[in-house]
Amino acid sequence: MPILNKDMTLCISLAARPSNIGTRFHNYLYDALGLNYVYKAFAPADLAQAVAGIRGLGIRGAAVSMPYKEDVIALIDVMDASASAIDSVNTIVNDAGVLTAYNTDYLAIARLLATNAVDPRTSVLLRGSGGMAKAVAAAMYDAGFANVTLVARNEVRGRALAALYGFAWLPEAPSEAAGMLVNVTPLGMAGADAGVQSFTDAQVAAAELVFDVVALPAETPLILAARAAGKRVITGAEVIAIQAEEQFVLYTGVRPSPELVQEASEFSRQ
Amino acid sequence: MPILNKDMTLCISLAARPSNIGTRFHNYLYDALGLNYVYKAFAPADLAQAVAGIRGLGIRGAAVSMPYKEDVIALIDVMDASASAIDSVNTIVNDAGVLTAYNTDYLAIARLLATNAVDPRTSVLLRGSGGMAKAVAAAMYDAGFANVTLVARNEVRGRALAALYGFAWLPEAPSEAAGMLVNVTPLGMAGADAGVQSFTDAQVAAAELVFDVVALPAETPLILAARAAGKRVITGAEVIAIQAEEQFVLYTGVRPSPELVQEASEFSRQ
Repeated sequence: MPILNKDMTLCISLAARPSNIGTRFHNYLYDALGLNYVYKAFAPADLAQAVAGIRGLGIRGAAVSMPYKEDVIALIDVMDASASAIDSVNTIVNDAGVLTAYNTDYLAIARLLATNAVDPRTSVLLRGSGGMAKAVAAAMYDAGFANVTLVARNEVRGRALAALYGFAWLPEAPSEAAGMLVNVTPLGMAGADAGVQSFTDAQVAAAELVFDVVALPAETPLILAARAAGKRVITGAEVIAIQAEEQFVLYTGVRPSPELVQEASEFSRQ
Repeated sequence: MPILNKDMTLCISLAARPSNIGTRFHNYLYDALGLNYVYKAFAPADLAQAVAGIRGLGIRGAAVSMPYKEDVIALIDVMDASASAIDSVNTIVNDAGVLTAYNTDYLAIARLLATNAVDPRTSVLLRGSGGMAKAVAAAMYDAGFANVTLVARNEVRGRALAALYGFAWLPEAPSEAAGMLVNVTPLGMAGADAGVQSFTDAQVAAAELVFDVVALPAETPLILAARAAGKRVITGAEVIAIQAEEQFVLYTGVRPSPELVQEASEFSRQ
């Protein structure tokens, strides 16, 4: 039985098709750290009324997923730099009725670039032009990367995103090598594209670091090829765990240990 | 650890000063009956936005307590007869965005009058003029009671409430006897009035049935005196358990067994 009590602080998520990952990740950490919080995912009937509910019920925080990451901007009070950098919100924090929006995907990518000590002079091939590609591109730009080629079939979006940061754009992946390969497309994701490797073996062989944002599964064909070639990798599971950890810190003010985050991340994916 | 999952249906309560009773009562029954529901009390920051949140988040039901029982009427879509009878709401049910308001205090009192088979020709002394006194008076009137004297120091409210149902009004408790004594004041409640017996020993001795709406404690001086005199009693704990059971049925469509309601009621008061 969930032993809830009236004083628990509620945090939620808003997504058209929620997964169980956030609910399990946050509740695991609340329990492990003895915090009187509880977390539950919602598929809102109406976004504006759901955000009113955050204010009216005093809900402490809300993760924001597809398709609400841009629409929610009009409903909050303050945009943190992490959200305004990419005009996309994945986290709302309620401080006594003042709603501040963050983007912890951006924060997670920035942190992974920093902790992996990637030299910003590295040449980069970046595939993708969606919201997450924008978070990656902005984090790379803000970390000083300039030698970046954005690869996106959608010319309008690809050109526009590349132009934002002064990056090159190409419609198809070139055959040449780069020091860092970054996949931010669904290639390799469970489903129709599960078997597709988003960069060639030759490109993997020439790279120093391979970063795949796909999280389900985290061991995509690209990541498996990179591991087999002895390359350093950053996986989508790391992005998800770190962005969730940053949400957790924003909601609770408590930073869990790396070991605990690892445990919660594994529990959340079971 | 609360083993929550994303698909749980949420029910809530809205009260300026929530108790833990509802949270424990409903969660106990959800667990015992294997329902994928979860319940939590809230002290709303803003009533209108909290009700918007019920719609926006798809919250299934909400208990409404002081001081929102009248103010919430303007925010809901449909008034059930139990709520319109007394212009007071203690329960909201959300059917795909349509909010219907009920008053399960009224339903509980009506059910207790019926199950105790009180003859409506019985003479009644009814002390109180607040919201709950109105629920009792309306339920008694609707059950055919006519020989009722409403006792209330507040002349404006007392006269108005008595007039609604054609009852007599008196400012102070008369010394004469009645077949049924009903206390709907705070006399006997934990706090300043804990030691006060709301009717005299002589009145208790002359009555057949004694009904005290005070629930904390349920064993008030009046109930203790009535038990000692061998009288039938109805306690506030019964009202709370039945009104909560009716809320549970409205939210889930499932009626728990009397034994289970008893267990949940005891658990909720621990």
